[in-house]
Amino acid sequence: MKNAVRGKFITFEGPEGGGKTTQAKRLVSRLESLGREVIYTREPGGTPTGEAIRGILQYNAAGEPVCPETEVLLFAASRAQLVRHVIIPALVRGCWVVSDRFADSTTAYQGYGRGFSVDSMLTINAFAINEAVPDLTFLLDVDIKLGFERLAERQRQTKTAKDRIEQEERAFHERVRRGYLQLAERWPQRFRRLDASRSADEVESEVWSILEGFTKITG
Amino acid sequence: MKNAVRGKFITFEGPEGGGKTTQAKRLVSRLESLGREVIYTREPGGTPTGEAIRGILQYNAAGEPVCPETEVLLFAASRAQLVRHVIIPALVRGCWVVSDRFADSTTAYQGYGRGFSVDSMLTINAFAINEAVPDLTFLLDVDIKLGFERLAERQRQTKTAKDRIEQEERAFHERVRRGYLQLAERWPQRFRRLDASRSADEVESEVWSILEGFTKITG
Repeated sequence: MKNAVRGKFITFEGPEGGGKTTQAKRLVSRLESLGREVIYTREPGGTPTGEAIRGILQYNAAGEPVCPETEVLLFAASRAQLVRHVIIPALVRGCWVVSDRFADSTTAYQGYGRGFSVDSMLTINAFAINEAVPDLTFLLDVDIKLGFERLAERQRQTKTAKDRIEQEERAFHERVRRGYLQLAERWPQRFRRLDASRSADEVESEVWSILEGFTKITG
Repeated sequence: MKNAVRGKFITFEGPEGGGKTTQAKRLVSRLESLGREVIYTREPGGTPTGEAIRGILQYNAAGEPVCPETEVLLFAASRAQLVRHVIIPALVRGCWVVSDRFADSTTAYQGYGRGFSVDSMLTINAFAINEAVPDLTFLLDVDIKLGFERLAERQRQTKTAKDRIEQEERAFHERVRRGYLQLAERWPQRFRRLDASRSADEVESEVWSILEGFTKITG
């Protein structure tokens, strides 16, 4: 996609409780307020096919558990459709795309976290997304303990069920976090690691100043 | 799966018109008549999740075309579920599994035929099937022209729409056929190439004699 007017593709990644959704939505608002056309995407879903896939993943379609390998491939399938039917057409017409999680989540969670081959995850991702590699990925890095405290606080506020933080679950999320850090080291051009233990306002202003240094924001 | 009582996993592959379905079903009947427990599988489908995936692939779930990359990944997702919920449990209890097409179809059709990276197809397949590599794969090899004539004849008999054999389509199927032959060269231990231009009875008897040489058939 060598196109002068091509929009930018920005993703937010990181372990739980780092504020990805908050930051992604704030960025969208801020870009829109400057007159930019922006699309916000979340996975799985975002296309009719992706929504159908989401249905299979969420409701266990037909009363059987979806095995972990199937889950990886269904996520990738939904992503492939989103890339070709939404993300690339948007970028080509100069629209920006801001995504709350993207392909790196599969590598971090299913590869580093769940123990599937990281190389296999990278190959599957590359096949699914082809040229739609993010221009910039904000890794909202946060200590797992703090991330879980934030989640618990959010659950208290929204009166949703409080997760039990089991030791094993904790170890899993530690692996995910370390996985993200390794991805950021491997692709330093694309990744920006931010200390997400700070307030949302502080993180937001760093996101913005990085973006201003990276590209011309106003159209 | 190092298990003395493990069943055998047999797949039938090849271009259109080679008689895969006929041979797979004849083999199932013959094994059953000897008292063997046998499962016949076809893709996509074979599990509730796989049937839901088949629905997405067949009916264009929500009125949008499924892009080719999504199709590959949905096939692989269905296959991963079939392997873990049906094929491996069956083999472990000593049941045989006979499949009309399996992972090699993706490599031949989407890799060699459609032009996706063959290595990517192999990686995605390996991730989807893990240890469920067929013990024996019968490649029912047939000249594309003859295969199409057989298909046309079948369509006349069943009064289904007659396919127009376009030049481009023909070239695609030629690539698929050559792809299968390359796979058979790459894994000579697993593949048996049969001349499928012969009658179904002749092919069946060769399938059977190869099987008798390969393993103890009666339980």
